[in-house]
Amino acid sequence: MIKVSVVGASGYVGGELLRLLLGHPEVTIGQATSERLRGRRVDTAHPNLRGQTDLRFSSAADLASTDVLLFATPHRVTMGLLPDLVARAPMLIDLSGDFRLHEAGEYERYYGVPHSAPKLLGEFASGCPELTRKALRDADWISVPGCMAMAAILALTPLAAAGIAEPEVQISALTGSSGSGRAEGLASSHAERSGVMRVFAPTGHRHEAEVRQHTGLAVSMTATGVEAVRGVQVVCQARARSVVSDLEIRAVYRERYAGEPFVRVVAQRRGSHRYPDPKILLGSNFCDVGFAVAADGGRLTAMAALDNLVKGGAGAAVQCLNIRMGWPERRGLEFPGLHPL
Amino acid sequence: MIKVSVVGASGYVGGELLRLLLGHPEVTIGQATSERLRGRRVDTAHPNLRGQTDLRFSSAADLASTDVLLFATPHRVTMGLLPDLVARAPMLIDLSGDFRLHEAGEYERYYGVPHSAPKLLGEFASGCPELTRKALRDADWISVPGCMAMAAILALTPLAAAGIAEPEVQISALTGSSGSGRAEGLASSHAERSGVMRVFAPTGHRHEAEVRQHTGLAVSMTATGVEAVRGVQVVCQARARSVVSDLEIRAVYRERYAGEPFVRVVAQRRGSHRYPDPKILLGSNFCDVGFAVAADGGRLTAMAALDNLVKGGAGAAVQCLNIRMGWPERRGLEFPGLHPL
Amino acid sequence: MIKVSVVGASGYVGGELLRLLLGHPEVTIGQATSERLRGRRVDTAHPNLRGQTDLRFSSAADLASTDVLLFATPHRVTMGLLPDLVARAPMLIDLSGDFRLHEAGEYERYYGVPHSAPKLLGEFASGCPELTRKALRDADWISVPGCMAMAAILALTPLAAAGIAEPEVQISALTGSSGSGRAEGLASSHAERSGVMRVFAPTGHRHEAEVRQHTGLAVSMTATGVEAVRGVQVVCQARARSVVSDLEIRAVYRERYAGEPFVRVVAQRRGSHRYPDPKILLGSNFCDVGFAVAADGGRLTAMAALDNLVKGGAGAAVQCLNIRMGWPERRGLEFPGLHPL
Amino acid sequence: MIKVSVVGASGYVGGELLRLLLGHPEVTIGQATSERLRGRRVDTAHPNLRGQTDLRFSSAADLASTDVLLFATPHRVTMGLLPDLVARAPMLIDLSGDFRLHEAGEYERYYGVPHSAPKLLGEFASGCPELTRKALRDADWISVPGCMAMAAILALTPLAAAGIAEPEVQISALTGSSGSGRAEGLASSHAERSGVMRVFAPTGHRHEAEVRQHTGLAVSMTATGVEAVRGVQVVCQARARSVVSDLEIRAVYRERYAGEPFVRVVAQRRGSHRYPDPKILLGSNFCDVGFAVAADGGRLTAMAALDNLVKGGAGAAVQCLNIRMGWPERRGLEFPGLHPL
Repeated sequence: MIKVSVVGASGYVGGELLRLLLGHPEVTIGQATSERLRGRRVDTAHPNLRGQTDLRFSSAADLASTDVLLFATPHRVTMGLLPDLVARAPMLIDLSGDFRLHEAGEYERYYGVPHSAPKLLGEFASGCPELTRKALRDADWISVPGCMAMAAILALTPLAAAGIAEPEVQISALTGSSGSGRAEGLASSHAERSGVMRVFAPTGHRHEAEVRQHTGLAVSMTATGVEAVRGVQVVCQARARSVVSDLEIRAVYRERYAGEPFVRVVAQRRGSHRYPDPKILLGSNFCDVGFAVAADGGRLTAMAALDNLVKGGAGAAVQCLNIRMGWPERRGLEFPGLHPL
Repeated sequence: MIKVSVVGASGYVGGELLRLLLGHPEVTIGQATSERLRGRRVDTAHPNLRGQTDLRFSSAADLASTDVLLFATPHRVTMGLLPDLVARAPMLIDLSGDFRLHEAGEYERYYGVPHSAPKLLGEFASGCPELTRKALRDADWISVPGCMAMAAILALTPLAAAGIAEPEVQISALTGSSGSGRAEGLASSHAERSGVMRVFAPTGHRHEAEVRQHTGLAVSMTATGVEAVRGVQVVCQARARSVVSDLEIRAVYRERYAGEPFVRVVAQRRGSHRYPDPKILLGSNFCDVGFAVAADGGRLTAMAALDNLVKGGAGAAVQCLNIRMGWPERRGLEFPGLHPL
Repeated sequence: MIKVSVVGASGYVGGELLRLLLGHPEVTIGQATSERLRGRRVDTAHPNLRGQTDLRFSSAADLASTDVLLFATPHRVTMGLLPDLVARAPMLIDLSGDFRLHEAGEYERYYGVPHSAPKLLGEFASGCPELTRKALRDADWISVPGCMAMAAILALTPLAAAGIAEPEVQISALTGSSGSGRAEGLASSHAERSGVMRVFAPTGHRHEAEVRQHTGLAVSMTATGVEAVRGVQVVCQARARSVVSDLEIRAVYRERYAGEPFVRVVAQRRGSHRYPDPKILLGSNFCDVGFAVAADGGRLTAMAALDNLVKGGAGAAVQCLNIRMGWPERRGLEFPGLHPL
Repeated sequence: MIKVSVVGASGYVGGELLRLLLGHPEVTIGQATSERLRGRRVDTAHPNLRGQTDLRFSSAADLASTDVLLFATPHRVTMGLLPDLVARAPMLIDLSGDFRLHEAGEYERYYGVPHSAPKLLGEFASGCPELTRKALRDADWISVPGCMAMAAILALTPLAAAGIAEPEVQISALTGSSGSGRAEGLASSHAERSGVMRVFAPTGHRHEAEVRQHTGLAVSMTATGVEAVRGVQVVCQARARSVVSDLEIRAVYRERYAGEPFVRVVAQRRGSHRYPDPKILLGSNFCDVGFAVAADGGRLTAMAALDNLVKGGAGAAVQCLNIRMGWPERRGLEFPGLHPL
């Protein structure tokens, strides 16, 4: 039994961390911080936790020492807070974007501000167990990838590793509204956001830097908000290096993800659930991954879907924690998702 | 050709007024006011008007004299502004709640503040043409009913007029998110508001006062927000004074609304469009009205649906203007609605 | 460890039964029947179960003896099948409408056909643990209430038991599309069903008979389909027998449901989660119950929300099974629901 | 005043044709055919037309001679019907896919069956006024492009014409559920289709053949169904031939579409309506077109959005009719779209 505290626990990723940790048999929650809501019950922000906990938000300033500190703070905030809080716990997991990129220059290019703690960038292991499981086993500082990055990395890794695709890859990512967090502006209001197909990053979405770093491919990423609260899907288009067949690619995917507890290869011939769709994944830690080969064998499409707040956030963090602690990797992440929803 | 100006034109009702007036062949728009957006193009707030107009928002302080002044300002704001602006136009149409109720006491009870211009309350004709068409023909000041009130009044008037129902009536109203206007708070954000069945007025919704005033029935109204941007529906349950038949009630409704250009009686035996549903009315000025009789003939259900921003707001205002000016009542309101949508 | 089989397992309630039973530590699944899909993997119908099971559908004709038989068959089908299958298991739980009403006449009135096994009607205990927990402890045949009935019964029971409300109660129920099961007709298609506020039972919804039977109140129920896949909400309006206060009613509800593992009293003064809303309950077995008192103390509104496929179906069945087997009542039903969703 | 008849008028495109033609001042509707619904009122299939017309469906076999025949029949059906019906009208407009491609081999490749009237393929002018206006002025047979093709063609034409982009272009198309017509299967049911991000064409969507034909670019197209009833959006990614600037591309788009009544260039620096989004276009005949240049000037994204049933179907047909008849091009197509919706 270890004790973990969550910094920035009033947001949506923070709420999912609390939900998952409350249901995790090896963990107790120490504190959950929110400056705005300190003193108030966590279930006022996360009404699904009514009856699950009597915890109240505290201030980050009042954080006690604990076994693990999870940062669900926004980009740019974590790198400001972390140096001060680093002594409070021997183990840190950051869910923001601040420690995902290895190079400070890339950070500045994609986040628009200089990194304030560039020396720490190299200290974090990447929280993408399917690529970095070994390193995670003794990592004390872990940085969880971005939601769309996670999906694209898992979609493309088999192709990249096998050297099947040309390096230039176009990614179109779709996302629900919870991806922008607890947002209060007019653009995020229901009447304005409902039913959109809103391109918010027509070129150069910041997650493309992560995908490039992990796959070595020259990806370009666009991102569009669609009608959904949760869920991310990526469709990646690439040219094949030589003519390939469906069977060949299927073997590559199956082999790469054999034994992975949270990656399923979904690429079927029939039915309405042929390819990855976040609709059936909400609340679960699965990332479904699929592929298709063009009729002439010259082009490839790789797809992936996940719940941005779970496998694209809180769930990935818990999965990393399980690996780091030597617990079964599925522990606390058993929820399979709902259908229909 | 007359000139009209819209006060409070940056909100959703204001936007609908602009859309309808831009398409109205007898009207030109003078000014559209917004304090927050003054100087900016109206199509920044209402992107559907791109290419329709080059108008920019001005301040209410700069309002020139005009033929008609339309108030799309929030409740409590109109009654503050109106006395100052009254001299700018011989004709006023108010779409807020401030001049709907005849008695200042009722206003205070339902709006939570004393009325600041109680002497003007009696000066307004009610902008519900199906009940007050005659008065509207020479009314200079008109107050348009609330969206849910409009629906409930039109649903219940035939029963009330014919004395068929017991006076105690329970109304359950459903509404989309645009009913609360351009809202920026967390509760209105897409992630929070999406997919709700959120009771926001479990008893005593303020529109019940209007329904009571217009029908004489002792109504009680609950209101629930559901997943929709536009649309209002009311389901009204009443006890019949004596046993009634479907045919009897059908005759009452058909007769009451014969010749009405914007009320259709919808109460069919089969199909998925048997009863009023705002889904097929969005953008149109129709209010569909329906009814059902319980198997034992002892209870009645009256229903109505409309687009809260059109027949429940801007469209009703234009309909009143048409009547007042002696123009064909459908002028500028011809859009029939879309299916499917 | 007991073995259960599910009859009619290809529908949505059947799918939820499989999901819950696969996660239940005391249960193994014997067979899952579907005539249409026999021989096919259950995860073709329920894609959220990919990786959870390799089970295939079998025919009801091939059902082996088992410990418990769960019927997720449609109304009218169960009463035809049950007499033949009754010998296959010592314990039966029916989730259809066929054995909910105690009187064959009521059944015929509400279901439109004579009951084919009227003698069995009295043999079933009602699967509403909050009212019948004691009887369930040694019940071998259990009939789970309808989804809207369950919500209304739990909303109204405290008032009915305390004798606070006049017996005449108006219920407005809202429901998502999964309530009509795996439906293939045009009316159920996405383009037609999306965004509706569709009154499908303007008077006399069949669940009103169940509410009457369990509460003794003279309820009348209307039902409206709204935009949602899962979720049921009821708003019940009643007149108070004498003037009541919020505090008084709060005490009645709190007391009635103290200690209930799946009923939470939700009636808050502020916030957007003041009253029961299925949005935060999807996938969970909670039924949130709330109330409001009109300003004059003379009228009451009782509300409830649940997931129609869980507490209004499969979850209630598992809860009953837990009670009957003497297991902890929350076993296998721990999922708390998601926010936001 | 001319008389037009609609073949296949019970579908969604057929319904939109009826809506637009009923509101068109130069047109009367002769007949509307549907084999399945013949004899029934058209407003049973299209409830938004209640009160707009008393027309009933007739059989195609009973089609009288008329001025214009519009085919809203499904792919493969038109080419079977057309040879027989060709004598009934001097002018034909086909909205199906059967006469869009110039080569029978391409048709077979993308539609999976041999073309049954290959000699007629060359007889049709393409109903994309922005490219073929001149030819449409005296075309007697017109074939309207597919909805996603129309969007992609309008998005890419400025780039292709100016020779700015490399020929290899990746298109990701999003579409609402009405794109598959009045669909009754399980995959189209609300519970299954709601909230999806469902890739239904991971490679080689058939509209890519049309885009290639019209733009000369080597496009590959994926298509994903998202939560919406109406609306299509395309995001096209290309490499620039040489480094380009935003200003340069803006000039290309502005110039290409200057004076076009139904194409608006939407590519703004701020706000939530920066890029084309079908949300504000529903019911209107606009196609909004936008673009973005990557930070390094080496890649381009072109975007477009439209209502698949209007500019991607019925509206385009009416626009073509207006051109062919020498009427003002906007006639009957004035509806600007709604916001919010």
